[in-house]
Formats: sequence, structure tokens, C-alpha cells
Amino acid sequence: MAQLRIALVQADFTVGDIPGNVDLALERCREAAEQGAHLVALPEMALTGYPIEDLALRSSFVAASRRALGDLAGRLDAAGLGDLAVIVGYLGHHDDQREELGRPKGAPQNAAAVLHDGKVRSTYAKHHLPNYGVFDEARYFVSGDAMQVVRIRGVDVAFCICEDLWRDGPTMTARSADAGLLVVINGSPYERNKDDTRLELCASRAVEAGCALAYVNLVGGQDELVFDGDSIVVDAAGAVVARAPQFEEALLVVDLDLPAAAPDTTVAPAESSYEGLRIEGTVISREPVPAYEAKPGVVTPRITDEEEVWSALVTGLRGYVRKNGFRSVTLGLSGGIDSAVVAVIAADAIGADNVSCVSMPSRYSSDHSKDDAADLAERTGVAYRVVPIHDMVQAFLEPLKLTGLSEENLQARCRGVVLMGLSNEHGHLVLAPGNKSELSVGYSTLYGDSVGGYAPIKDVPKTLVWDLARWRNAIAVERGETPPIPDSSISKPPSAELRPGQVDTDSLPDYELLDDILDDYVEQDSSSAQLVAHGFDKDTVEKVLRMVDVAEYKRRQYPPGPKISVRNFGRDRRLPITSGWREVASD
Amino acid sequence: MAQLRIALVQADFTVGDIPGNVDLALERCREAAEQGAHLVALPEMALTGYPIEDLALRSSFVAASRRALGDLAGRLDAAGLGDLAVIVGYLGHHDDQREELGRPKGAPQNAAAVLHDGKVRSTYAKHHLPNYGVFDEARYFVSGDAMQVVRIRGVDVAFCICEDLWRDGPTMTARSADAGLLVVINGSPYERNKDDTRLELCASRAVEAGCALAYVNLVGGQDELVFDGDSIVVDAAGAVVARAPQFEEALLVVDLDLPAAAPDTTVAPAESSYEGLRIEGTVISREPVPAYEAKPGVVTPRITDEEEVWSALVTGLRGYVRKNGFRSVTLGLSGGIDSAVVAVIAADAIGADNVSCVSMPSRYSSDHSKDDAADLAERTGVAYRVVPIHDMVQAFLEPLKLTGLSEENLQARCRGVVLMGLSNEHGHLVLAPGNKSELSVGYSTLYGDSVGGYAPIKDVPKTLVWDLARWRNAIAVERGETPPIPDSSISKPPSAELRPGQVDTDSLPDYELLDDILDDYVEQDSSSAQLVAHGFDKDTVEKVLRMVDVAEYKRRQYPPGPKISVRNFGRDRRLPITSGWREVASD
Repeated sequence: MAQLRIALVQADFTVGDIPGNVDLALERCREAAEQGAHLVALPEMALTGYPIEDLALRSSFVAASRRALGDLAGRLDAAGLGDLAVIVGYLGHHDDQREELGRPKGAPQNAAAVLHDGKVRSTYAKHHLPNYGVFDEARYFVSGDAMQVVRIRGVDVAFCICEDLWRDGPTMTARSADAGLLVVINGSPYERNKDDTRLELCASRAVEAGCALAYVNLVGGQDELVFDGDSIVVDAAGAVVARAPQFEEALLVVDLDLPAAAPDTTVAPAESSYEGLRIEGTVISREPVPAYEAKPGVVTPRITDEEEVWSALVTGLRGYVRKNGFRSVTLGLSGGIDSAVVAVIAADAIGADNVSCVSMPSRYSSDHSKDDAADLAERTGVAYRVVPIHDMVQAFLEPLKLTGLSEENLQARCRGVVLMGLSNEHGHLVLAPGNKSELSVGYSTLYGDSVGGYAPIKDVPKTLVWDLARWRNAIAVERGETPPIPDSSISKPPSAELRPGQVDTDSLPDYELLDDILDDYVEQDSSSAQLVAHGFDKDTVEKVLRMVDVAEYKRRQYPPGPKISVRNFGRDRRLPITSGWREVASD
Repeated sequence: MAQLRIALVQADFTVGDIPGNVDLALERCREAAEQGAHLVALPEMALTGYPIEDLALRSSFVAASRRALGDLAGRLDAAGLGDLAVIVGYLGHHDDQREELGRPKGAPQNAAAVLHDGKVRSTYAKHHLPNYGVFDEARYFVSGDAMQVVRIRGVDVAFCICEDLWRDGPTMTARSADAGLLVVINGSPYERNKDDTRLELCASRAVEAGCALAYVNLVGGQDELVFDGDSIVVDAAGAVVARAPQFEEALLVVDLDLPAAAPDTTVAPAESSYEGLRIEGTVISREPVPAYEAKPGVVTPRITDEEEVWSALVTGLRGYVRKNGFRSVTLGLSGGIDSAVVAVIAADAIGADNVSCVSMPSRYSSDHSKDDAADLAERTGVAYRVVPIHDMVQAFLEPLKLTGLSEENLQARCRGVVLMGLSNEHGHLVLAPGNKSELSVGYSTLYGDSVGGYAPIKDVPKTLVWDLARWRNAIAVERGETPPIPDSSISKPPSAELRPGQVDTDSLPDYELLDDILDDYVEQDSSSAQLVAHGFDKDTVEKVLRMVDVAEYKRRQYPPGPKISVRNFGRDRRLPITSGWREVASD
């Protein structure tokens, strides 16, 4: 056996900011070296950030990524860290110069390299390219066909990238190469309960590969995606050795006892391969690490489901604000649950001092709404002002002679204009407070409550919004703090207050029922016939499905927000606006 | 040789409206039969419309498409058209029931079938799935691996689908099968000059296949895409035999003299194949058509480049309006060139009676703007009203104390609220008048001039907007009609008129220069270094590229509009909002 101290860099790399990412990578490698690591692994496409979308098609961007890889190797060496083996994800480039339809010459690859002694010693291109859900990698990348195994301090280390672990091939290839460790670098976005799946996967794939497995993931927010970290090390039996925290940057340093490669052998002999995936070997250093006292691995406990979702929302918002150069946010506070929860997420993400809330009462706003809005501001310490919209509404209402629903929408749009005006004047990012249930059925006003640069709870169903509110208040009580959300915002019947006595259930089923139907239809793609078979009332199903189908145009213009579900609106669920398809329950 | 009269159905099938599409298919087959056709070909995915996006992942939708195929076969037979061979595109289904990550069981296929005698006689699945530009077929479909050849009235007819023609394999397979005719069914969206490419492709592939080639395409608007028809028949030497009009429905009936298959042979013997693409043969009818007098094919002349673009914009808007159930549109008329052109496109698309224009002067609006807006309404006959926005603007300005750019945006947003109010009250679809140059550099107000359900000229650079205006006026003169666009709207310097004396060139380079840079950067993906090498001023390049890069968030919330360029914003060009990447010209 041979000892090896590995360090997994769970960090927040920024899409497109290649110089910043190189600096961050170097800094983390320095910390890892200070902690005595022999091998460092950084996440998938760490040097470019992930996902880079059509930036992959820009030859100047590909060139910058490849240059950055060499720069990082050089700077590591110059900093006296040449001895450290560093596995890092970057945007690579296939040598094949064939012109092919829809693909630039020298196609981009989702790649990983091993840096050592100032040089790029081994490169790998992702074999399995995911092209479903939020992933579009077949649009960008050419698949690699050779597994890489590098001998580091006498241990044969195989490595691959993200989706490679979820599919067959690479793990068995690592076994066939007799690898002592399999390192998997990832850009794996958060969704609810994915941490459980990920752990099971790591454990079973380690057993399959017949060696320990180290899984390192990105952390941080990138438009619709939130990376939750959750880096994991398991031993060859699949038992957890170490696990990093969720939604936080971390350097996970782990001592491993690994099978030593027989000295003087070549790495991964040419004949070893698995189902068409070749194996290429590189010797980086044969000399095993002198014996040292190993420290036990740290296994960070998992957080609860509510804390997980809350952390995802906070991480997503914080990332969007910071990476887009904002310092503050603004939103309308109605006294209702959605805007209350968004305000508290914002305060948790960037500090209450940077959150500016506006109450914009109309003549239909109830006293309790105004009170609850003010109460929330008082509890959280966010800035708060009141801008009555009556005169603004009247300025349109009279010349245009708007009535009914047009008048309701007008109120919401005047509020949108107020928020955008304050945003322009003060540089705030506007937050849209819509939840997933509303967004599903189109229960919102285009250019009204939907205005904003980011929509923190757009993937959170209404019933979960309430759960999160209760959870966040309970946590505050546990910590001896004031619960941030007024009880009456949680307990009162939801209302848009756009006409006298209006409540959401005038137009919608109860949210418990609505969310159940939406979960079946939007997340699971159930047909109306299946929904009826699941016990839902046929008329309700038809009504809800029709509302969902015709609201696509509203969703298309909605701001981005963090994905927490298995299928968010946007990257995950992509439907035509123009569509004659209607699910019919009698089908 | 054997005679065959084929009919290509160039028609407007609606995404999702399967029953409507079956009716339309049946009706066109009936017309084809009345004209004596022996073989009818309908476009790619005619029964479902194209592209269906994530509808492909709904099992209820796949089932409905497959049922519709059987229904169409049955209804053809019941209508006495069983004798007609009909090639039609539909959404099929692979029998493989393996569960695979990100793919529903029994994966969908982009398929074509031959119907005859009330039955589905042969089915084919698209071999080459495009996954670049506006196409995402790797997300949805499983590739087919067998070419189909059907013997119809003694002629061996091979068929394939769209992208199959653009890549290697299927054409050579048709040659290897000794086909007498290759039928290609398409859903090929318009872009400028694509008709020339398409004709060259058909000619060269016919020569390669060694047989005549019939190319049938969709027509009509579907969200961002416009299908231009342009169905083509070429002979085995690649010479054009017939060509359908652009942007119009048509039934292209063509008499062909084709090689007769040797009687009593099997179709496409098992040993014939090409590069892994198997060939399967089906005999539908051996008996050649009795000799008849052939008519010469009709070759419709091509329209000019300007007319092509104009027709695309009109077709796109008309399709969006009709298929989404609108009867009328509204837009703000500023007196400038963009809204003038949009108003005329709308009048051409759905009739001036259904176009309702609103002039919304502020205190910065010039007299000539108000005059030009009224003049356009007079010339075109669109409905016209004036809604001054001064009081609305003041209602926000005073309590919010907005200044400078915030005040400019406020005016645009008040206009947005007016238009949306009129839309809600009267059911009009709101049109956004932004052009591609503005959209590229973010020269627009979010929720202001950007409001709308459809943006007819969002893919048209400003310089082309002027060209189109001049062309449209010239056409009117040719027809003896009043030129619809006031000369001064064309000739005056463009201005947003949001502050005194403002002109676009205060913030932007001259549009001639801007559009040249944008063409290089947005359409060709040139780097800043390449742009400088192309002779553009370094500072101007940096300024423009930076404006383009930071405006992504605005584009993301912009309404859809018809693609006319090689790279439109939306389906074609997909960039992250959050991105640290900045092209630097000194690079």
C-alpha cells in the first residue's frame, strides 16, 4: 500500500472569468500544498467556469482557456508547487481539423489535465456528454475516447469527468487499468435530494472500479444553476471517508491508503481497454510518499431538506448579484408570503443593509398587508419605503378607460415601473417574487410583478414557500433571533389584492391540490389521462393543464432564477410558445 | 423507364395541432389525387409540426402522433385514396425499451412513413440528427440506422429526412440501393441566401445518388422560425425540373420519367448498404403507370433578397398571430423608421384593419415625429390614436425623483404600460419594434420599448431596416399604390427622443459601421483581435463588444421574433447572462 494526501478544491469558479479562475485555482493549490497534499483535484471546467454555453464556440475563448492551462502550470512551478500533481478541468480542443456541419474546426472538448513540474503531463476529454435536462454538451463538445491513468507517487490514478461516472464504461475501464484511485471532477448542479443519489453513485462506482473514488464538485450560483459542492471521498468498499459541506467553499484534505503500483512497470499497458475506451498511461512520479501519520477524514453532516433548498436559493441569488457586479437589490413588499420570503433570502444572501424594500399600496391593499410589510422590514432591518401608486394608476386608468382584469394588471405594472425606476436611479438589482405555482399557471402580470433581473423562488412551489417560511422562522427561534417573517404573512389566505376581496382561490384550486397536479404534470410529464387515473378531478386537471400550456409566453420572458427541482422552467423544460397541443383528460 | 406523377405538399402544419395537421394532410392528398398524382410527399414531422421541442418527451404526445399516422392511413383509404402512396413525416418511437439517463423509455424518433392501401407500409427514422444552431435533435431523438426503399408503380423510391441530405451517407446509400428517385422531406427554416445553398445541395446530391431528387419543405411561422417552402425537384443530372414558390403554400405536381426497377426482383437486396446504414426494401406496387402525356414542370422564379426578408417577416408574424389565436395587433408609432416598418409588416401580414397604432408623445417628442406617425397611419389605413404620456410620467417622476437615464427609461416604460393596457382591454397582440442592432448593444428599455408578445424585426440590422423600407415603398410605387412609409421616417437621423436633441449616434457608432462590426462579432464569432485585423478601430471594437456582452440579460427577456440571419438571438446564439468573459482587442 502507498499513502497519498489528496485535496479536493470545492470552489466557486466564475463563468468566463479565466484570469480570476486561474488565480483562484493557484491560491487553493497553495493552501493544499501548505496542508501537505500530494494531489489536488479541481472541478470540471474550473478554468472557464461551467456551463459556458456558446462561449465554447468562440475560438478566442477556447484559445484563452488553453493558454490559461499552461499559465497555471507555469505559475504553480514558479510558486514552488511544481511537485504537486494537479488535476484541473478546462475547455480543450480536439486536434481533428475536419470541417463538420454546425461545428467549428478543431472542436472544443470538455477536458481535464494533470499539471506537474510546470508542464501539462496528461489530458483527458470527457467521454459521455450529457444532452438532456439542463445539459447541452452534444451541441459543444467532441467526445474523448481514451481514459487516462497517471502514476503519482507510486499510485495509479485514473480520472474522468462528471457524466462519465453516471454511465457505463469509465468505471470498468479504471478497473481494467488496475487503478488505485479514481478521481472524478464535476460540475453537478443542485436539485432536491440529489446528494443522496450522488453518494450512492460514488459508493457503487467505487466498488465497480475496485478502488477508492474522489468526487469534487463546483459550488456557487450561475444563472439558473446552483452548484452545491458536496464533494465526497469513498474507499474501495464504497464507505464514506470524507465529505465536504454543502453550498460552501471548502478544501477537503484526505489521507488515503491506496494500492501501490508494482515498481518499474508501465502504467496501464496498451492492451488494457474497456468497450472501446482506450487507456493511456503516464508516469509522473514513481517514488511513494515516505510514511507519515494520517489524519482521519472529516465527514460533514448533511443539512435538512429545507435548509438545503434555502441554501440553494441564497447561493443562487448571492452568485447572481456578485458575479454581475451588483451591490444591492430591491423588491416590492406586499405583505404576502412570497415577497416576504424573497426579502429574507436576499437579506441572508447579501445582508439586510443591501436590501431595499418598497411597499406600493393601491386602493385595494388591505391594512394588514401594509402592516405586515412594515413588520417584516422592522424584523429584518431591510430598508423600507412606502410609495402609494394610486395617482400613477389613475394617470393611465382615465385616458385609457381600463376596466376589470386590465385594471388589475395596470396596478401590477405601475409597481413594476416604480421598481425599475428605483433600480435605474440607485443601481439595485430588482428581484421578482413569483413562485413556481404562479409561474406554472400564469398567475402573474407580464411586466408587472414579473419585472426583475433575478427571480429567487421561481422554481419553488407555493406550498414549499410556506414550509420554507416556517422553517426559517423556527431556525431564528433556535438561534435566539427574531423570526423574520410575520406570522400573519404565513397564515393568511393568499391574495394578489388587485380588486376588493380577491383571493387566489377565486381563480385557482387550493395550493395543496394545485401543487400536487403540477408536480405530476410539469415534473413527471404525466398525461391528463394519467392524472385522472391518479385520482385528480377531471375538470380540475383540464383547467390546470390548460392554464399551464397557455402561459408559456409569460414564462419565456420571466427572469432567470435558481433551479431546485428536477425540472425547472428554462433550461430543463423547453416548450414552444406556439402550440396547438392540449392534453385532454378523456383521452 | 417508368412514368410517375409526384406531388410535393408545401404546407403550413401547426406545432402540436395533430388533428388539424391530419385534416390538412388529407385535404392536400385529395387535391394531389385529383391532379392524378401517384406519390405524395409531405414535410418532416408534418403530423406534429416542427420543431416540437420538449413535446417530444411527453409520452401522450408521442402516442397521439403514432395514432394519427394510422388514422391518416385509414382516412385516405376510406376516402378512396388507398391507391396513392403517401410519404409523411411524424413523431415516431423506437422499440428499444432500455432505460437510459435523460431519455424516456422507448425513445422518440424523427420519422417518416409510407402509407398505402390504408396501412403503414414502411417507416424510416432520421439518421443524422442536427444539434447545432437552432437545432436540438440529439436532446430528443434516437437515430435510425436503416434506409428504406419502397417500390411504387415499378420505381424504387428511397426516402430520408432533411439533415440526412446535408451529410454523407444517405445519398450514397440510395445509389447503392439503385433507387430511381430520392425523396427528402424537410423542416428547413429560412435564413438569408439559404435558397441558393439548398438548390446547389439538391443538385449535387442528386448526381451523387444517381437519381432524381424531390425535396419538400414546410412553410409558415413557428415562434422564432420561418419555413420558406422552396420545394425543389431536380433530375438525375442535377437540373431543376420544378420549384415551388417561397413563403407560400403550394402543391408542386411534377411528372418524372424514372428508371424502372427490373420486374420480379426484390427491392434493395440485403447485401446493399453504405457505411453502416442498412437498406430495407418494401414492394408497394410493381405495376408501372400506363403511359400518359406528361406536363412540363413549373419552376417558380426566385424573389429578390429584400422581398425574401420581407416575406419571412410577414410570414413569421402572420403565423404567430393566427396560431396563437389573436386577431389584431397594437404597437407604438414613434415616427421613426423601426415602428413604421413594423406597422407596415403587420398590415401586410394581417391587414391594416387589424393593426392599431398608438402615438404616445412625451414632452421630448418632436413635431415631425408626431406628424410622421400620423402620416404613416394615413398612408396605410391602420387605426391610429394619440395618447400623450406627460401626466403618466409626472405621476412617477415626482414621488420617485428620477433623473437622467432613469427618466428616459421611465418614458419608455409608461409607453409599455399604455400598450399592455390596450392589449389587455382589446385583446391585441403587442408588437415590439426593436431591431437587431439595438438588441445587440442593449439600446432599449427593459419593459419599455421591449414589451410585446412578438418582435417582428428583432433579427434585422438597422441598415437592413432602412433597405426594407425603401424597397417596400418602391414596390408600392410599382404597383401604383401609395408608398406606406413617410420619406422623412427613412431619411431623418434616428433618435429615441427621450431627452432634448438626443440622437442614436450620441451613444452608438454610425449604424453602417455598427452593423459591420456586429456582423463580424455576432454572426461570425470573430474575436476582437480579428475585428481589429479586419480594419475596425480598436476603441470602437472594444466599446461595441462590451455593450453586446453586457446586454445579454435584456435579450433574454425580449419577445421572440423571426430568424432571418445565420445567427439569431435566441435559439441560435445562447450565452450565459453571468459571464466574466470580455474580448480584449489587444489580445
